[in-house]
Amino acid sequence: MFFHVKELQFEAKPDRPDPVYAKRLQELLGGKFGEMTVMMSYLFQGWNSRGPEKYRDMLLDIGTEEIAHVEMLSVMISRLLDKAPVKEQEDAAKIPVIGAALGGGNPSDVIFASMNPQHEIVNGQGADAKDSMGVPWSGAFATASGNLMADFRWNLMAESQGNLQVSRLYEMTEDQGIRKMLSFNLARDIMHQNQWQAAIEELQADGLHQFQVPSPFPFDRVNLEQAYTCWNCSTGTASQEGQWASGPTPDGNGEFVYLADPKPLSNDIGELDQADPRLHGTPKQPMPPMSSGPNPISGQDIPKNVKKSAVTSGGQM
Amino acid sequence: MFFHVKELQFEAKPDRPDPVYAKRLQELLGGKFGEMTVMMSYLFQGWNSRGPEKYRDMLLDIGTEEIAHVEMLSVMISRLLDKAPVKEQEDAAKIPVIGAALGGGNPSDVIFASMNPQHEIVNGQGADAKDSMGVPWSGAFATASGNLMADFRWNLMAESQGNLQVSRLYEMTEDQGIRKMLSFNLARDIMHQNQWQAAIEELQADGLHQFQVPSPFPFDRVNLEQAYTCWNCSTGTASQEGQWASGPTPDGNGEFVYLADPKPLSNDIGELDQADPRLHGTPKQPMPPMSSGPNPISGQDIPKNVKKSAVTSGGQM
Amino acid sequence: MFFHVKELQFEAKPDRPDPVYAKRLQELLGGKFGEMTVMMSYLFQGWNSRGPEKYRDMLLDIGTEEIAHVEMLSVMISRLLDKAPVKEQEDAAKIPVIGAALGGGNPSDVIFASMNPQHEIVNGQGADAKDSMGVPWSGAFATASGNLMADFRWNLMAESQGNLQVSRLYEMTEDQGIRKMLSFNLARDIMHQNQWQAAIEELQADGLHQFQVPSPFPFDRVNLEQAYTCWNCSTGTASQEGQWASGPTPDGNGEFVYLADPKPLSNDIGELDQADPRLHGTPKQPMPPMSSGPNPISGQDIPKNVKKSAVTSGGQM
Amino acid sequence: MFFHVKELQFEAKPDRPDPVYAKRLQELLGGKFGEMTVMMSYLFQGWNSRGPEKYRDMLLDIGTEEIAHVEMLSVMISRLLDKAPVKEQEDAAKIPVIGAALGGGNPSDVIFASMNPQHEIVNGQGADAKDSMGVPWSGAFATASGNLMADFRWNLMAESQGNLQVSRLYEMTEDQGIRKMLSFNLARDIMHQNQWQAAIEELQADGLHQFQVPSPFPFDRVNLEQAYTCWNCSTGTASQEGQWASGPTPDGNGEFVYLADPKPLSNDIGELDQADPRLHGTPKQPMPPMSSGPNPISGQDIPKNVKKSAVTSGGQM
Amino acid sequence: MFFHVKELQFEAKPDRPDPVYAKRLQELLGGKFGEMTVMMSYLFQGWNSRGPEKYRDMLLDIGTEEIAHVEMLSVMISRLLDKAPVKEQEDAAKIPVIGAALGGGNPSDVIFASMNPQHEIVNGQGADAKDSMGVPWSGAFATASGNLMADFRWNLMAESQGNLQVSRLYEMTEDQGIRKMLSFNLARDIMHQNQWQAAIEELQADGLHQFQVPSPFPFDRVNLEQAYTCWNCSTGTASQEGQWASGPTPDGNGEFVYLADPKPLSNDIGELDQADPRLHGTPKQPMPPMSSGPNPISGQDIPKNVKKSAVTSGGQM
Amino acid sequence: MFFHVKELQFEAKPDRPDPVYAKRLQELLGGKFGEMTVMMSYLFQGWNSRGPEKYRDMLLDIGTEEIAHVEMLSVMISRLLDKAPVKEQEDAAKIPVIGAALGGGNPSDVIFASMNPQHEIVNGQGADAKDSMGVPWSGAFATASGNLMADFRWNLMAESQGNLQVSRLYEMTEDQGIRKMLSFNLARDIMHQNQWQAAIEELQADGLHQFQVPSPFPFDRVNLEQAYTCWNCSTGTASQEGQWASGPTPDGNGEFVYLADPKPLSNDIGELDQADPRLHGTPKQPMPPMSSGPNPISGQDIPKNVKKSAVTSGGQM
Repeated sequence: MFFHVKELQFEAKPDRPDPVYAKRLQELLGGKFGEMTVMMSYLFQGWNSRGPEKYRDMLLDIGTEEIAHVEMLSVMISRLLDKAPVKEQEDAAKIPVIGAALGGGNPSDVIFASMNPQHEIVNGQGADAKDSMGVPWSGAFATASGNLMADFRWNLMAESQGNLQVSRLYEMTEDQGIRKMLSFNLARDIMHQNQWQAAIEELQADGLHQFQVPSPFPFDRVNLEQAYTCWNCSTGTASQEGQWASGPTPDGNGEFVYLADPKPLSNDIGELDQADPRLHGTPKQPMPPMSSGPNPISGQDIPKNVKKSAVTSGGQM
Repeated sequence: MFFHVKELQFEAKPDRPDPVYAKRLQELLGGKFGEMTVMMSYLFQGWNSRGPEKYRDMLLDIGTEEIAHVEMLSVMISRLLDKAPVKEQEDAAKIPVIGAALGGGNPSDVIFASMNPQHEIVNGQGADAKDSMGVPWSGAFATASGNLMADFRWNLMAESQGNLQVSRLYEMTEDQGIRKMLSFNLARDIMHQNQWQAAIEELQADGLHQFQVPSPFPFDRVNLEQAYTCWNCSTGTASQEGQWASGPTPDGNGEFVYLADPKPLSNDIGELDQADPRLHGTPKQPMPPMSSGPNPISGQDIPKNVKKSAVTSGGQM
Repeated sequence: MFFHVKELQFEAKPDRPDPVYAKRLQELLGGKFGEMTVMMSYLFQGWNSRGPEKYRDMLLDIGTEEIAHVEMLSVMISRLLDKAPVKEQEDAAKIPVIGAALGGGNPSDVIFASMNPQHEIVNGQGADAKDSMGVPWSGAFATASGNLMADFRWNLMAESQGNLQVSRLYEMTEDQGIRKMLSFNLARDIMHQNQWQAAIEELQADGLHQFQVPSPFPFDRVNLEQAYTCWNCSTGTASQEGQWASGPTPDGNGEFVYLADPKPLSNDIGELDQADPRLHGTPKQPMPPMSSGPNPISGQDIPKNVKKSAVTSGGQM
Repeated sequence: MFFHVKELQFEAKPDRPDPVYAKRLQELLGGKFGEMTVMMSYLFQGWNSRGPEKYRDMLLDIGTEEIAHVEMLSVMISRLLDKAPVKEQEDAAKIPVIGAALGGGNPSDVIFASMNPQHEIVNGQGADAKDSMGVPWSGAFATASGNLMADFRWNLMAESQGNLQVSRLYEMTEDQGIRKMLSFNLARDIMHQNQWQAAIEELQADGLHQFQVPSPFPFDRVNLEQAYTCWNCSTGTASQEGQWASGPTPDGNGEFVYLADPKPLSNDIGELDQADPRLHGTPKQPMPPMSSGPNPISGQDIPKNVKKSAVTSGGQM
Repeated sequence: MFFHVKELQFEAKPDRPDPVYAKRLQELLGGKFGEMTVMMSYLFQGWNSRGPEKYRDMLLDIGTEEIAHVEMLSVMISRLLDKAPVKEQEDAAKIPVIGAALGGGNPSDVIFASMNPQHEIVNGQGADAKDSMGVPWSGAFATASGNLMADFRWNLMAESQGNLQVSRLYEMTEDQGIRKMLSFNLARDIMHQNQWQAAIEELQADGLHQFQVPSPFPFDRVNLEQAYTCWNCSTGTASQEGQWASGPTPDGNGEFVYLADPKPLSNDIGELDQADPRLHGTPKQPMPPMSSGPNPISGQDIPKNVKKSAVTSGGQM
Repeated sequence: MFFHVKELQFEAKPDRPDPVYAKRLQELLGGKFGEMTVMMSYLFQGWNSRGPEKYRDMLLDIGTEEIAHVEMLSVMISRLLDKAPVKEQEDAAKIPVIGAALGGGNPSDVIFASMNPQHEIVNGQGADAKDSMGVPWSGAFATASGNLMADFRWNLMAESQGNLQVSRLYEMTEDQGIRKMLSFNLARDIMHQNQWQAAIEELQADGLHQFQVPSPFPFDRVNLEQAYTCWNCSTGTASQEGQWASGPTPDGNGEFVYLADPKPLSNDIGELDQADPRLHGTPKQPMPPMSSGPNPISGQDIPKNVKKSAVTSGGQM
């Protein structure tokens, strides 16, 4: 079970309110690669884990830390939605993002028009479990497959995509308070990239998995003729210039083969059998109206009297 | 632009219809890590690419190949939904999956109850862009960040998760025709895992990126004190036993530090300012009814006469 | 505004409970082409209509009738979920769908395993706004474009897809009560197909629109060279055999031209400009770490002191 | 079944077009707590109701009224999207929201940039079944559980959240026409809050339910030791200061007990059994490659010859 | 921030595997009223809270406890998906749910056909953030409005709906281990219903809010004539029989008035202005083709030469 | 299988960057009626087709062409997101859309506030599989029913809605490069409207289907009395003025009949049976607490000792 400590892991104090930035920051909270996604993924990976304890413990350590990151972002977003005190408002006129449209109107109007309306209407100056476009976080974003090699690759990827997004958001503000917090997020995402890479190597060192997912794996199941061929499915051969097109494969089991002009391996043109007339699809030839006969699912005859009783009376046809 | 060749890349011929397996196979077509996801991800990564041509070309090669995989799965699913000929139906009684409940009923009833109803009602014995539980494929599954290191990690991960799912589906059938096709899918997923790993190494060899995403990156932006610390956020220290807790970090820039008993780095308890009374949130102290005053967004006074006219007549209060 | 009359438009009385069929019937209520979709589409088309009153009135007539169809299906589903009286339960053993697995177990177990769990857990023997796979109805299914020609084509299509689904569900049961209600649904869907076709012709007779959507339309905006060419983008020329490949076009403005071996019309290979270094995408050549400079969005310099203060202390690098 | 009356329940005439406000107003139409949600919830609660007629009748009364509210909002949104007449356009320059950015550009450009693009592109100046961020309404928002106490609590809550949103939107405009309509919505939401509270009391007065949901309920099923304990799962004991931490419980059955320093009630650390090797998860110890053996689902042996035939030819390994 | 304790709050040990029940139990984990929903709602309500500390602290207490409930359910689901040892399998033949279809097939086949395929294919015998029909949890389920009265009503409702679902799931199994855990869940849901009711009363005792949401509120904004009228929008007057139709209103401010035969309050029939021709909607009268003129958004003339250059060459019209 | 040709089908070169327009253009790529929708629909219709080869071939031709349209839009969006060169930036001040708010701020600030944040944060200046409001494309948008008449109506409708959207987007820009590409899209959508109409006529000429979907169809299943009646469900009879209310029906089988004052055809008021007490719904009369008895699903008695053991100890009640 879990316990909460009142202090944030790291402080979340912007220099001033900025509701347009609050909208953007939602991406890190409720986006596909945001903190909710890594939090729920690591926790489910830990809870579902059937492997050695050290992996399970680490997953729950980091998953628990990520709850604190959701918390930090939530507090930061709420503070960015604060009503600015008067002094700040006046200063805002001199700051591009806040005072964008000071020509003939009111400085807050552009913000009014551009901010996430739900931050006010739905959440009353608070954060929500949604991304920067207002799309709700989805449980489909969490990943936990039961195979730690596959999942640690997901984790390494997610920290990479997440850190990329933090870096982009860092560029989009000059608010020192926001940047201070993001510099902490950057640090943790660097750490976690390193950590998942180390864990990938540990799985191999422990003999639990090799490079390929899944592994160990009975190779006699695989169509090995096609396990190392690089199909050039587009015009030009620029794709031949990388180490993915020739030389030894990273799994140590083969050599890349470049197929410059590949052909289909089958003569199966995907033609399908006649449609079942009882499902009213389009047949290959004209068909008489299907009138009676066995039920398409149960295979039983349709009782004649059912059809009669189903039509309550004659019509004009 | 694109051209279609009639032949399937590899044949998709099951030994016999099996609508329950057709339902399961939808996961590989329209699931989060199914063929639609890798097809759209690689194509968008290619179309959006601003890097060297060889990467862009390879992305479009593989993305184009994946359209053929969607095609193969779609044909296979349609054939698994075929109406079995009489001979097959009789045999079905002897095969566990098909003839599950032959005791007192009809062999097809359990299948009727268990199959995906949309395969008949909506698609008329055809495949759909949904997963094995009938949830539609989502554009949120496609990933294209503009940073090839982040995206190649996604690609490596996706081929790993996808191959894991193919392997599991391989175990769930004894139909040699299905297994023959899956042995081809296994081969291609092994190839693509190797290919993306080689591409990750190529990015580094080309000097475009280093281990960390994003890179190159100005490290003076990062809170470096926390870039290599491993926070033990749960009871027990099993998580200390891996190479993620001590020793050099994979990026070559530091040493892991294990914080066995970490404390928050801030004394910020996340307290927020008073709610704006005009948004009707809960205040810290009782408040008189808000009656008039500036508009919370535009900062303009609410005209007195508006409120009067808004109430068409007196009530019983 | 609206008023409700207690009686159903048509009776909704199944002969006996059938929870597996109840699950399937949800497709007609909350599926993409179910009654909720046509109800909300016709109502929004009517409410949003800026055209002649007779169209608006008809849209609201049919939209209002469709609420009654949602009602009928909801009642039918609830009744299919009723607890069968003892007599019915005994009879069930003789009916394939209900008594599927009477061999060594309880007749209701297969139903328990196959029914929609939410019908019991979430709705307590009631209907829900979801399809036959439990996916919630989406507001994206409703269509109202402001152009009645486009929307009447949607309406004709939706009644066609809907009627096809009703026909398929009719085949899947032998329950006379269900079939009686479905025979009414079939009649209304036939009527509405005729009605929308008549309305499409009326729009043209009234001179409001021609065949093409949108119309009237200034043709000097169109790349007319490509307005009647049929591109053969796959091997083989079977697609040349239809009246879509030669002869006059239905809009009366041209002749179909079959391009048996089409080529791209451009030499634009889609290459993109260099990535903005401040967004940390992959560049065309190796780049030094981006350190400072103008904010990528506002174009303002990043103040030097921000970066210093953002890093709270030195690290081990 | 239903009938439509042409007149709106209450007039929906804004003083002037305001497409940015139209975007915000979508929250009341297609948002989680908007009119579509209460309309569909009350209708489903009524149609699914198996309780006394007076509740069913009231549910259908209010559900039917709510269709009229969807209609009012739809008309209001369409009118807010009207092309403003010239006179209005000139006035716009003097009104902050409309004329935001008059400095160097065109008054409509900020509106163009900020409005919901789908209001023009998809709906042609009309409303849609989506929220203020363009996310489609979901059937998951409708609630109908079969238990009227649970559902009336949902109804009371939904009218509360909805009225809160109406109040916030009221603050965001100075348009007297909009405010006139919202003053009607406020009145109806006040009425409905009162009505659902009265209905909750009626359920108890009728002896159908008590405070607890579900009730009546066999208390011997409950772990009563934990039915009135307040677990302090965070640092500090501010949560002890409310009447939820001591004194009699609202259900009249117990006394609140505050656990200031709670401990887990179990010594179950959630460890799971070994992974099934045929699902290729991560095992607790290194495993040999799984080669053959019974199918993980059916328990049947995998035929040896299947694996051979599945590999079409030898590879380079 | 948060810390994890290894022991589960309460043990989660089923007597035996039951994958069909595991599918159903997902409703309590990832359904609309499942533990993820209350966990995220209480945490966001706490993090976003701008009211007195005691409420914020309680919200974070209970939100933190709910993470432990997600954990318990996740572990329980994983264990229900365990491969049963041989002894259990043999016993299964005697237990209806497991051995449903022993007649002519394999006892596990019905389970294979009926279980959630993703539990094996996607999660490898583990839980996921989805409901019992496989639909992903949505961020739209979390509720945090900034108004504690509205939110505590949501909380009371959610615990009611959730407890109803626990009770129904309790009925659906005879497994003593599952029931033992559910008896704990029942206890906590009873506690939380009491707690939120006490908190609602505390808000009123503290003078922060009254019955109505939002409150305090300036009543001169409300159309008071319609604040206590009960509109009978359907045939029959059974809805007049409850205390919601006459007598004092729960808010103490009025008397219910029953309108047995209500009429629209407006003569606004919702007619809209002419469609903007540049958006190609359907007009009220036939229109000439729109050829040029001001851009519909910016109001600027469309340059004549643009249109010419946009058509690369003449066509066959 | 598929092959890619490097050249775009038609060039996609805007005159200058315009990130706000890029946001709008996403509707054509990932919206409900965008290119992804027609691409996947035509491909699935082709792959699932069980009818004559010429239809299948045409479907795959057009489906393959549509992949090229997704490609063109993706490239166009990426280019609209390009960083404008300095010269362009200076010019921007004179162009309304770009330089909207030049009064007191920076010309890019309004764009910053109004653009799709994910175009930078998530995609790094690239396109995504989402609509103009950032909502991900859904697999539910693809349509393939197995009945070509129903599907060709869908195709005709989709090209109509799509072309309407292209026309509206054409109006919203003065960029000649964008308009040049859209003039090609307009041409192809005109072609495809003609082509699907020709294909609808071909299906009838081939004797495969008649006007009605589905057809051929056994009319003795239909409640023919209601197959041609026009129900006037709203006040007023403006809906009587169209050819849908009298005269011969388009299917040639009947005459429209206008029911000016229709009544329900049933006296079924939708009343449901008593709720099953074990599902804890609201009953018609007060009920004693349900204590024991058969399991609601399996019909088996709940063992007495289970309930005892489920309560670990006595409580304070």
